[in-house]
Amino acid sequence: MNIKNICITGAAGNISYSLIFRLLSKLPFKNTDKINLTLLDISQSQKSLIGLRYEIEDCAFSTLNSINVTDNVENAFQESDYIIMVGAKPRSKGMERSDLILDNANIFKSQALIIDRVCSPSTKVIVVGNPANTNALILNYNTPSIPNENITSLMKLDQNRAKSILAEKINEHVEDIQQMIIWGNHSTTQVPDLSNCLLNAEQINVDDTWIQNIFIPKVQKRGGEIIEYRGLSSAASAASAIYDHINIIDNGSNSWESLGIMTSGEYDIESGLMFSLPLNVTSEGYQVIKDLKIDTYIETLIKLSEKELLKERDIVKSYLP
Amino acid sequence: MNIKNICITGAAGNISYSLIFRLLSKLPFKNTDKINLTLLDISQSQKSLIGLRYEIEDCAFSTLNSINVTDNVENAFQESDYIIMVGAKPRSKGMERSDLILDNANIFKSQALIIDRVCSPSTKVIVVGNPANTNALILNYNTPSIPNENITSLMKLDQNRAKSILAEKINEHVEDIQQMIIWGNHSTTQVPDLSNCLLNAEQINVDDTWIQNIFIPKVQKRGGEIIEYRGLSSAASAASAIYDHINIIDNGSNSWESLGIMTSGEYDIESGLMFSLPLNVTSEGYQVIKDLKIDTYIETLIKLSEKELLKERDIVKSYLP
Repeated sequence: MNIKNICITGAAGNISYSLIFRLLSKLPFKNTDKINLTLLDISQSQKSLIGLRYEIEDCAFSTLNSINVTDNVENAFQESDYIIMVGAKPRSKGMERSDLILDNANIFKSQALIIDRVCSPSTKVIVVGNPANTNALILNYNTPSIPNENITSLMKLDQNRAKSILAEKINEHVEDIQQMIIWGNHSTTQVPDLSNCLLNAEQINVDDTWIQNIFIPKVQKRGGEIIEYRGLSSAASAASAIYDHINIIDNGSNSWESLGIMTSGEYDIESGLMFSLPLNVTSEGYQVIKDLKIDTYIETLIKLSEKELLKERDIVKSYLP
Repeated sequence: MNIKNICITGAAGNISYSLIFRLLSKLPFKNTDKINLTLLDISQSQKSLIGLRYEIEDCAFSTLNSINVTDNVENAFQESDYIIMVGAKPRSKGMERSDLILDNANIFKSQALIIDRVCSPSTKVIVVGNPANTNALILNYNTPSIPNENITSLMKLDQNRAKSILAEKINEHVEDIQQMIIWGNHSTTQVPDLSNCLLNAEQINVDDTWIQNIFIPKVQKRGGEIIEYRGLSSAASAASAIYDHINIIDNGSNSWESLGIMTSGEYDIESGLMFSLPLNVTSEGYQVIKDLKIDTYIETLIKLSEKELLKERDIVKSYLP
């Protein structure tokens, strides 16, 4: 029997509540029969985590081998095949964004040092907690024993949103759209780019005015729109995107994907940033799709997102060895 | 392409929030490529339902053909293949249980009259909202055009809980346990009965003291235990059980199942109650498993659950034509 060890941080939160049951209902890992699930959250959440464990057990999932709830980071990370870092400190009222970034830098650096010490180089880490790309950057710089390509940040939610908004516009099924790209940061500066999109292998024509005035801002601000309508931030859709992201990394994908990865000079973007780029992904790893023609409007937006990430990197520079 | 029409009531609530994404991630319906999903809830929840629709769209599910959010019961139910009745009025502070039963009787009777008028006889209705069995009874009596066997109430959560608690006790995997029975009402009078349980086709031996003093009360009160630990009632585990219930009805099951069905004198239980019984279920329908030997202790408990359901039926008698 093949068993994988999966650790989820921020396990008592709403995204994890959606993610865990989805994972167990159909494991996204190749050749895996069962998982050992470790749920990590802060001490104050341990009682709630026990209730969560009861609910998980109450589902009688045949995919669950064991379940462990803990506030001990070291025990949680040890021997993990995947660490899904959903947890992050949320922004409180009146808090400056730079303070939020620093608070999380602190958390992610301390978790990185533990990962570096207790995890094997084959461990895969997916960063979801915001600011996801900069948190992932800190993780990457502070885990010399883990290869860069094993640490990625979640951009799949943005890509799914962009596909869905385009599908609605052209009145087609979302699964028939390929080659949607998201460039940059997982923030309102992200750049959804449909210029290479295909519908069942045919080019898609939509007018530039709609792309620039409706499509791009709508994708960028979709998270805020959900909060406005639901009174709560995206949880199930984020969890669904995490599921897709795991599935892509573990099994590969037939379509272009966008993950936040460590840059090394592609498309004139500064090296050493966690940045979303168009990728071909196999179960062996990913390759940046090269030599795409980028139009001037999109290029300007990519530069803005790069600038934001450079600024974030500057804020956390004391956390980067 | 095969498309089914699925309607969910109480769609803005927590159970539905867990259920919808689970359904779309892997449809539990046989020979079905996509679904038309209708989400019904009261007027005050329409804004939140729009946000929910956005999140569903943002998942880019290939299984979703269309989505409709509404507060119009008639439009929602029309042409449904399945109506999953999650919605019910919750008990407010200081409210008598009999008043709760009557408030819901009122809701379920008015919905039943609409189902009877606008739905085809092949429509399947699953009742989740509590008091589930008595709500289902009212539905059944007020939908003469729908065959009794097409209306069932959810007991799968209780069966999953019972299996999981037994699996933990004997330190075995939950999927290896078969023939767990839940008798009676979906309430604290329910009767989890492990006397026929098998572990990989072998009989299971656990002592009567544990069964009577630990197992039965623990299963009966598991819902309360979840609330105590999480501060919220079961949602994802209830949704998972609904998913299992649909899967069982639509595809049949190799194991014994417990669903709330209309009684007709089996095991000396009063006819004309919605009562959980041991069933063999195929995609064509279900058959009560007959001639099981029931020990005296279990029989006494079954009588108590029957008594509770008779009392509930008495409270709602003016809603039963």
